Amino acid sequence: MILVADNLQITNQTIESAINQLNPVPIQELVRQCESAGAQAIDINPGPLTRNPEKKMTFLVETVQSVTQLPLLLDTANHKALKAGLMTGKNHPSTPIINGFSLEPKKLEHILPLAKKFRSKIIGYLLYPNSHVPIDEADCIHVALALYQEFSKAGLENEQLIIDPVVAPVVWENGIRHNMSMLSVMRNLPDLLDFSVQTIAGISNLTTGKIPKEKKQILEQSFFPILAASGLSMALLNVFHSQTMQTARACDALLSPEIFSWTEIST
Amino acid sequence: MILVADNLQITNQTIESAINQLNPVPIQELVRQCESAGAQAIDINPGPLTRNPEKKMTFLVETVQSVTQLPLLLDTANHKALKAGLMTGKNHPSTPIINGFSLEPKKLEHILPLAKKFRSKIIGYLLYPNSHVPIDEADCIHVALALYQEFSKAGLENEQLIIDPVVAPVVWENGIRHNMSMLSVMRNLPDLLDFSVQTIAGISNLTTGKIPKEKKQILEQSFFPILAASGLSMALLNVFHSQTMQTARACDALLSPEIFSWTEIST
Repeated sequence: MILVADNLQITNQTIESAINQLNPVPIQELVRQCESAGAQAIDINPGPLTRNPEKKMTFLVETVQSVTQLPLLLDTANHKALKAGLMTGKNHPSTPIINGFSLEPKKLEHILPLAKKFRSKIIGYLLYPNSHVPIDEADCIHVALALYQEFSKAGLENEQLIIDPVVAPVVWENGIRHNMSMLSVMRNLPDLLDFSVQTIAGISNLTTGKIPKEKKQILEQSFFPILAASGLSMALLNVFHSQTMQTARACDALLSPEIFSWTEIST
Repeated sequence: MILVADNLQITNQTIESAINQLNPVPIQELVRQCESAGAQAIDINPGPLTRNPEKKMTFLVETVQSVTQLPLLLDTANHKALKAGLMTGKNHPSTPIINGFSLEPKKLEHILPLAKKFRSKIIGYLLYPNSHVPIDEADCIHVALALYQEFSKAGLENEQLIIDPVVAPVVWENGIRHNMSMLSVMRNLPDLLDFSVQTIAGISNLTTGKIPKEKKQILEQSFFPILAASGLSMALLNVFHSQTMQTARACDALLSPEIFSWTEIST
């Protein structure tokens, strides 16, 4: 599984002011720390970027790429920012991944075509057009099929799609019920779409809300292997949660078909 | 999932001498501690009991039942000890579970019929007749079908069967490969046997061998949710591993179809 750092986000006040002041130093420092902590990709989440979206996203992509060769995910609903970021980042070893689209009409119109234009991978969220989360398995499947239909209609190749079945916070009224549906859908997606579609999940979403810190940790550490066992390809997480990162490595060891003996992983 | 304490075993020297001296006190103390730690059943593992098997197993069952109402598993290959333990324990709220039989001819001959006689549940190990562990999935399935055939031939009811697909230590040459086969078999058993067969797995087996303590803990904590997500019904584990026990409770919360909201579990 590929571990994607969700640490570079606007909710971090140091990052927020660095973006506003176009100051690369704190961002570079954070990215270096993420890579040291074991991140295998970096999600750039600058929020909606209402002012100067192109300039800010260009700055962000240049700044991050100045200190790492890791793949990037561009995580904003602002299609102008996405376009600028893709333009800036496309000469990096791999074109940034667009994060992401859904059945929301504005995203279908403005974001999905960017994946075609830049031949980039794109994350598709299993959400209703109004961005609500489907609860039951049948609804999740319905959304997945509709999403794939839009994706295909846009002329994209199967290997460009990464599905995010959307982890719900456990504190939500139907959060646990949704997450159980989501796990089942994730296991059945390859059969459903008839190809081994990649998947991504935001681990931190699970424990959003008012939960004591030690419970958050154990919930995250317990949910990670469940997702791994259900075939998740990429996990978006706080890479500074060292116990979750250790769990991730243990899951890789326990679930890797290419690993046949402990001696290969114990060093 | 039902959490079974594997703590009451002959490899614990205090327990070994308590059994030899027929001294109930240390055993009662341990069982009380297991129950406080969250055990929902107690596995009694006195080893092969070469001397006075009936007397010792009778003593053990009486001693454990004197301090707990929890269900018991009688974990020995000595059929005389099993018979004595079942005789002693049968008037307890639930008859002890026999742990267990396999395709080994001696066990088919002497242990399997005890489940018929005492109408007890019995654990069946997915092992070859020579007690070797099948590595590939096809071999595990082959063994599962052969085991079920013997079980049925003995005139037992489906609900009496609990299958142990055998967790292999990661330090074994093919341990990880076997465990991956085992997970897949576990998910497919209900389809294979055409009923929702119960399963049990010994979590502590995973980390048997020379592994640093902190790696053992993270491996155990990572493997537990994987087993839970694969549908495991009962876990045999060291209930004093508090982080694994917390993980178990988190898994229950995250994977229980009857739980629809966090408020039901957060108290």
